[in-house]
Amino acid sequence: MKKLGMEHPESVADHSYRTAVMAMFVSDARGLDTGKAVRLALLHDLPEALVGDAMPEERSGKRKTDLETKAMEEILSELPHRSRLLYREAWLEYVEGKSEESRLVRQLDKLEMAIQAWEYAHESGDPSKAGEFWVSAKEHIQDEELLVLLSQVEP
Amino acid sequence: MKKLGMEHPESVADHSYRTAVMAMFVSDARGLDTGKAVRLALLHDLPEALVGDAMPEERSGKRKTDLETKAMEEILSELPHRSRLLYREAWLEYVEGKSEESRLVRQLDKLEMAIQAWEYAHESGDPSKAGEFWVSAKEHIQDEELLVLLSQVEP
Repeated sequence: MKKLGMEHPESVADHSYRTAVMAMFVSDARGLDTGKAVRLALLHDLPEALVGDAMPEERSGKRKTDLETKAMEEILSELPHRSRLLYREAWLEYVEGKSEESRLVRQLDKLEMAIQAWEYAHESGDPSKAGEFWVSAKEHIQDEELLVLLSQVEP
Repeated sequence: MKKLGMEHPESVADHSYRTAVMAMFVSDARGLDTGKAVRLALLHDLPEALVGDAMPEERSGKRKTDLETKAMEEILSELPHRSRLLYREAWLEYVEGKSEESRLVRQLDKLEMAIQAWEYAHESGDPSKAGEFWVSAKEHIQDEELLVLLSQVEP
């Protein structure tokens, strides 16, 4: 909203939906564990329901992770014990990026952001507005196939 | 938008996101195939990207399914062969409701709609507005646990 001056940007759920569809598609195509990949994609921004979205310069690194982990614990505290354990483990797997599925979803999160920024910037008539989002995505994506997709939305 | 007189209702992606989270949660809790359940939830309204959302009195039954199946074929035609087969099969599984996962997601689709209508109606100060949505959900839900949830959003 701030960086693109938009009144009605996508919701966090819109972003998570498309990230989850991309996770499903890539995971299915690569024979990964789709249940796991999509679980991580559906959960990855759930803490924002409590702490809101933030720009990297406002909140990043360990402070962001700690804040979101605390929010996730609060959300999960409403769940039955066994579900709580499963989703807590999934969340930690996501933030630590220790599995192929979690590394994939972490990169898709950035790719989806860059694609969405590209779409908004084009609608606004000033594609350069998406530059900052694209550079941030570029810094976080190593997967070669995803880099090809990212190159297609270069501002 | 028409029935609740809303300017900025949830997007189809918002609805699909929450349906997918519910599918993940129930599927995980019941030991079903979460990858499959979430795949069906993520795909179930994708045809609306082409044919739009419609009210039941505008489009329902076989005509709705045929139109959506055609739209799904069009969307899937962009994909590699193997992915196309996988998602075509998933779509048919969803519309035919032949697996436990597909019957679950079909009911969650209605439950999510009823919950969302309830939330909107409460925000608008006239809870009765959600009545029609609730009755429609009630007609389609047989699962006992989901009926308990539905009873909690009775207008």
